[in-house]
Amino acid sequence: MTKDDLRRRYEEASQWPLIGLAVLFVAAYAWGVLRPDLPGWLLTTLHVVTVIAWPVFLADYVFRLALAEHRWQFVRRNWIDGLAVVLPLLRPLRILSLVRVARVIDRRLTTSLHGRVAAYVTLTASLVVFMASLAELDAERGDPDATITTFGDALWWAFTTITTVGYGDRYPVTAEGRLVAGMLMVAGIALLGTVTAAVASWFVGRVADAARTEDMAARAEDDAADAAADEALRAELRTLTEEVRRLRAELAGEGRAGLSDRG
Amino acid sequence: MTKDDLRRRYEEASQWPLIGLAVLFVAAYAWGVLRPDLPGWLLTTLHVVTVIAWPVFLADYVFRLALAEHRWQFVRRNWIDGLAVVLPLLRPLRILSLVRVARVIDRRLTTSLHGRVAAYVTLTASLVVFMASLAELDAERGDPDATITTFGDALWWAFTTITTVGYGDRYPVTAEGRLVAGMLMVAGIALLGTVTAAVASWFVGRVADAARTEDMAARAEDDAADAAADEALRAELRTLTEEVRRLRAELAGEGRAGLSDRG
Amino acid sequence: MTKDDLRRRYEEASQWPLIGLAVLFVAAYAWGVLRPDLPGWLLTTLHVVTVIAWPVFLADYVFRLALAEHRWQFVRRNWIDGLAVVLPLLRPLRILSLVRVARVIDRRLTTSLHGRVAAYVTLTASLVVFMASLAELDAERGDPDATITTFGDALWWAFTTITTVGYGDRYPVTAEGRLVAGMLMVAGIALLGTVTAAVASWFVGRVADAARTEDMAARAEDDAADAAADEALRAELRTLTEEVRRLRAELAGEGRAGLSDRG
Amino acid sequence: MTKDDLRRRYEEASQWPLIGLAVLFVAAYAWGVLRPDLPGWLLTTLHVVTVIAWPVFLADYVFRLALAEHRWQFVRRNWIDGLAVVLPLLRPLRILSLVRVARVIDRRLTTSLHGRVAAYVTLTASLVVFMASLAELDAERGDPDATITTFGDALWWAFTTITTVGYGDRYPVTAEGRLVAGMLMVAGIALLGTVTAAVASWFVGRVADAARTEDMAARAEDDAADAAADEALRAELRTLTEEVRRLRAELAGEGRAGLSDRG
Repeated sequence: MTKDDLRRRYEEASQWPLIGLAVLFVAAYAWGVLRPDLPGWLLTTLHVVTVIAWPVFLADYVFRLALAEHRWQFVRRNWIDGLAVVLPLLRPLRILSLVRVARVIDRRLTTSLHGRVAAYVTLTASLVVFMASLAELDAERGDPDATITTFGDALWWAFTTITTVGYGDRYPVTAEGRLVAGMLMVAGIALLGTVTAAVASWFVGRVADAARTEDMAARAEDDAADAAADEALRAELRTLTEEVRRLRAELAGEGRAGLSDRG
Repeated sequence: MTKDDLRRRYEEASQWPLIGLAVLFVAAYAWGVLRPDLPGWLLTTLHVVTVIAWPVFLADYVFRLALAEHRWQFVRRNWIDGLAVVLPLLRPLRILSLVRVARVIDRRLTTSLHGRVAAYVTLTASLVVFMASLAELDAERGDPDATITTFGDALWWAFTTITTVGYGDRYPVTAEGRLVAGMLMVAGIALLGTVTAAVASWFVGRVADAARTEDMAARAEDDAADAAADEALRAELRTLTEEVRRLRAELAGEGRAGLSDRG
Repeated sequence: MTKDDLRRRYEEASQWPLIGLAVLFVAAYAWGVLRPDLPGWLLTTLHVVTVIAWPVFLADYVFRLALAEHRWQFVRRNWIDGLAVVLPLLRPLRILSLVRVARVIDRRLTTSLHGRVAAYVTLTASLVVFMASLAELDAERGDPDATITTFGDALWWAFTTITTVGYGDRYPVTAEGRLVAGMLMVAGIALLGTVTAAVASWFVGRVADAARTEDMAARAEDDAADAAADEALRAELRTLTEEVRRLRAELAGEGRAGLSDRG
Repeated sequence: MTKDDLRRRYEEASQWPLIGLAVLFVAAYAWGVLRPDLPGWLLTTLHVVTVIAWPVFLADYVFRLALAEHRWQFVRRNWIDGLAVVLPLLRPLRILSLVRVARVIDRRLTTSLHGRVAAYVTLTASLVVFMASLAELDAERGDPDATITTFGDALWWAFTTITTVGYGDRYPVTAEGRLVAGMLMVAGIALLGTVTAAVASWFVGRVADAARTEDMAARAEDDAADAAADEALRAELRTLTEEVRRLRAELAGEGRAGLSDRG
């Protein structure tokens, strides 16, 4: 069994436990942010859960990297996983750990490219907006100049940001909050780009299909012409063969006639 | 007659009544929102019209679904109709019922893909902006902090939102208003994506046409070369056949000469 | 001479006078808006020039339409000209008359599709921003709540609007100003879409070129294989012909031998 | 050695010194802007460095232009270098000189088109945001109405601008600052367009690959059919040749028989 086979086996086995951990992480993070009035021991527990998630994801990534035959290729193909492991060093960015879940779900979907993209974009955007709202609220709440002080405000702000509308009735004022906002804007650009690209490729596909249908017709015509040319060639060959056969028959007849003549 | 045929018949027959109902719904909703100073009995009537529209659309959808042979396929192909039926549970979202009208009109247009897209985008965007303005005004008007208090403001706000400009001189403050705004932003993303995609596919089509013309020329040349090779082969074959024929003729002549010689 | 030929002749002859008129219109409009402190008689003169421009453009459009053989096709192909004629009924929208100039200049450019698009987008966007700034300033200046009161502000506002950034530090408050803003936003969407589409088609072209190069190689290989097959066929034919010739020669030899034998 | 060869040699030799100068320019500019409390002689030194950079870049451009065989083509192919030379006349725009560095780095990257675009976009966007923040801070800091007074604010503002979010919590108020902002918005449009285009071309490529795979299969089938037809033809020819050979053999046998018969 090669190392890559081993890696694939491990990835399959670890998939669901890791998704479970990611969900737990999100739940603990969300609960801790949304209910800051919980008793201290519970807040501590929730905090511990969010802190523990990271080393597990790091171990997972390092283990898979160690098992990869082509390391550089592995890093390039799994760059989202890599980012998700590195970035959580900054507290609010731990949200990216969730991307792995989305990727697993994606692998399960077996519909068309456009359907998969629609599902993937909707899921990722929703997750990113939800987690960014939490992180933003967590970062801003304590600041005296903050305009984002409730989860409703944070959600509304995240939505106006990822769509690049940006009314400016709510905006982050802390450095941490602006960092989250910057990532959300980048996500917005990516979102816009992906939606546009999916629609565009669907369009181009429609137009290209029409062109290909025409091409196919042209090729079918070509094939028919080829077949006709072949048939003509074979007809000439048949005539020739017939001629040669008749020649042989005549010669044979004559030969026998000659023989009998002489006999 | 198959179930699908029956469904198609029903869809054709129900088309115009349903469009009429949708127009009635929009008119009643618009009138009720724009003139809140109407006498109570009229406002009630208008409200009843908007409330009645939903069960009719629901019944239409369920009936068509029941008649569909491949249910899952039907749900996927008519997902806009499905959304329009489910979402009106939230009052301001009833505007989506109108999408069905746009779809019917679309089916009537028989021009090129790009023309249809332009017409569809313009129509849908106008409808969405109009209905979102009404819904927003309805949602915001009562709030003391509201910045959107007249239909003019609402229309202006809707326009800055769907184009993702978002000045922020007007913005929703209620949860219901923000929900409408969120849908409008998503519509804005889709609008941007579709416009870009249509232009892009037109461009790509222009470039691809040039490439195809070149391809066609190359293929025509290929075909000409093939035909010439074929013709050369056939010419050789004809020469050979001629040779064999002459051989037969000579032998026949000789044979007769031999026979007459001996005779 | 057909009607369409006549129209083309007229279009060529009227091109430069109409551009001259459009430039005059813009200059008069700009001067009137930017220097409201001019003496009354001069302002009146400038106003008369901007008012006169419209009937001339209208007459031009109607005349060309009358000369068109396929009227509907003419309307569809020249929809920008049509819009520019209809919309000036609203004063600030007269700016659109200028689009005709851009179209003429465009026809003169004979570079590649992407170069033409870049030139066209830059020119159109600059014209639209300039004229919209003037119209906005004209519309807003008189309002007590106006935030756009100098040409610098108007230009800045127009730029933030067409790029859909929309800070909201300046925004229109009058109905007329919002109408201009709405048109500028639509122009912004179109601008974004066109820029993206041009870049995308350039990309797709690069990728498609690579694919076509590969295709060409595959086809060249195919052609070589075809040629080899042809050559093989012809070689077999040559063998056969040789055989038949040898046969004839032998028979002829034998025949002569037989004849001499008998002689 | 042609002039173009000479130019290429010069470009290779001057590459790294010019990058060094650009880095020096950025460092001096950044240090001068970020630490306005430095002693006067140091500020003067930094200023001199930024002032000296321009004539060097100008001389480089003019020298390369002089060595170019096709001047117009050179100007068109190196339009970014040209812009970077012309624009620094306006102080904050000197940032564009850096673009030359990005181009050199780009030439070093030899990965796929999409990878190169991703790297190029990330690098250019980061450079542009960084330099625009510096220029903006430099331009705005002195104004009493300024909302951008720290480097953090400037960076945050630049990010909201290039992504076209535009909250409006920070915005330029000086003419110089608005000029920088305008360029940043144009960069934002270009950024959005390029990201979208890259994603779109990747999509279209995926769809086109599928189509080509199908095409290839169809063509392979065609080729197989052609080969089979060819083989059938050749088999017929071989049979015929065999026939003629047998005929010759029989005639030869008969001839000999006839000869021996007569002997």
